[in-house]
Amino acid sequence: MLKIVVSRPPLLSSIRRVFFCSSALKWVGGVSFVQGASRGIGLEFVRQLLEGNENGHVIATCRNPSGATGLHDLKSKFLERLRILPLDITKENTIEAAATSVREHYGSLNLLINASGILSIPDVLEPERTLSKLQKTSMLLAYEVNAIGPILVIKHMWPLLKAGGGSGTKREFALVASLSARVGSIGDNSLGGWHSYRASKAALNQLTKTISVEFARRKDPIICILLHPGTVDTDLSRPFQRNVPEGKLFTKEFSVQKLLNIIDNAKSSDNGKFFAWDGQEIPW
Amino acid sequence: MLKIVVSRPPLLSSIRRVFFCSSALKWVGGVSFVQGASRGIGLEFVRQLLEGNENGHVIATCRNPSGATGLHDLKSKFLERLRILPLDITKENTIEAAATSVREHYGSLNLLINASGILSIPDVLEPERTLSKLQKTSMLLAYEVNAIGPILVIKHMWPLLKAGGGSGTKREFALVASLSARVGSIGDNSLGGWHSYRASKAALNQLTKTISVEFARRKDPIICILLHPGTVDTDLSRPFQRNVPEGKLFTKEFSVQKLLNIIDNAKSSDNGKFFAWDGQEIPW
Repeated sequence: MLKIVVSRPPLLSSIRRVFFCSSALKWVGGVSFVQGASRGIGLEFVRQLLEGNENGHVIATCRNPSGATGLHDLKSKFLERLRILPLDITKENTIEAAATSVREHYGSLNLLINASGILSIPDVLEPERTLSKLQKTSMLLAYEVNAIGPILVIKHMWPLLKAGGGSGTKREFALVASLSARVGSIGDNSLGGWHSYRASKAALNQLTKTISVEFARRKDPIICILLHPGTVDTDLSRPFQRNVPEGKLFTKEFSVQKLLNIIDNAKSSDNGKFFAWDGQEIPW
Repeated sequence: MLKIVVSRPPLLSSIRRVFFCSSALKWVGGVSFVQGASRGIGLEFVRQLLEGNENGHVIATCRNPSGATGLHDLKSKFLERLRILPLDITKENTIEAAATSVREHYGSLNLLINASGILSIPDVLEPERTLSKLQKTSMLLAYEVNAIGPILVIKHMWPLLKAGGGSGTKREFALVASLSARVGSIGDNSLGGWHSYRASKAALNQLTKTISVEFARRKDPIICILLHPGTVDTDLSRPFQRNVPEGKLFTKEFSVQKLLNIIDNAKSSDNGKFFAWDGQEIPW
């Protein structure tokens, strides 16, 4: 099996770093893994990680690669720096298979981004406006996709992240970033509603915190953080955009630029923390 | 169908109230519903609610009433003041049936206590010591029992609690108390481990907070709180008691006395809050 040797890229000039933009990541080189990358924020992460880091390799996963036209467009431009793999976070065997593929081709990982998530599926999962509409099936589905799935991905990528640490990236550790949401904050919950989604994200926050404690205790060269991307103009938010205040509906490009900035600047003391797109910590 | 008319009991003397003990509840009269009452903390709640409130009625539920010897002992003593009903929180139709029975026999509720919970079941659910042991089936089971179940009980009892409010209890509102756990606190999580349990309790906390917002917005005469009973000498904690510091393993009697004290003293501004047995608020 061909193993790609990841070379250390030339230093980016300090001027380019000061004027941060999507093409000037401090995260240089290394191997990144973006789970949930067929569209929306996940696809934009893949694009910026490829464009802004000319020696970096990216593995992009989605349920159905053959239908992921956005990823195929990037593949035609970035060729062997992008690998597209199938992964359905509701099927643990597909996560294991992706981990096996990464191990064989790269041997390690430096960055894992969990970008998948569900909020609504017509006739299947509706964000609840009242307790009386709560359905067990919806709650289980949101939990499976938004909380369990990302954690199973971390479980299987853990040995690869441990092997990678910061090597080849000028960092001291590997980083796991999972997309959470401000509405997952219990302390910040003053509006109510969206029970299934809120509970699944609160659980994801708790699971990430739990994992961060273990990584620290074992002195693994990995930190985990949670990110709130803001309200971003994607398929996920589209049915709910009408109440977003002016100037608060972000483009994917803007949000991901901000989130990569947080990832770039994360310190080991940020392990287990929950950040909004602007770098502010969000209460649990 | 016979409808029990709940009479307002005579005032307890102020002296008895000052020297709080299990037989001097300020919560007088009314109809209480204890879910998960066959043993442990739930059974002790039933006992103290019956002993300490001579005009109060209690509905006690469990999966298998015929095997609930502790409840049958209380039934033989308290007769028509105790009603035992079957309820399995993993089966929503049994929750609906219990709600129907309460409506027919009492017409309303003043207090709902969710006391059920799982932490471990040999060969089925083991509290995880490491991320590498995480199993989807365990996570779903803990979520179904510890987070979804109690919330479905609240969903179906909501109209009864709204009808009851504080009537007959010298209170201004009905109260819902669900047993959570300090290990469900994300902010307080410094030890890691027990992923499934921690995540399910964090989700229960978020769901309760979400519901409390709706109750307040609708001006329903109900408040919801979350309670951490401490580490109590029950079947749930028994496999994990060896690391409990001396003096920190509570009897059921002590813990429930403390929790009823919190329930007794709860103010409307406590809606949506999370309290330890000693009345201290726990961070999310």
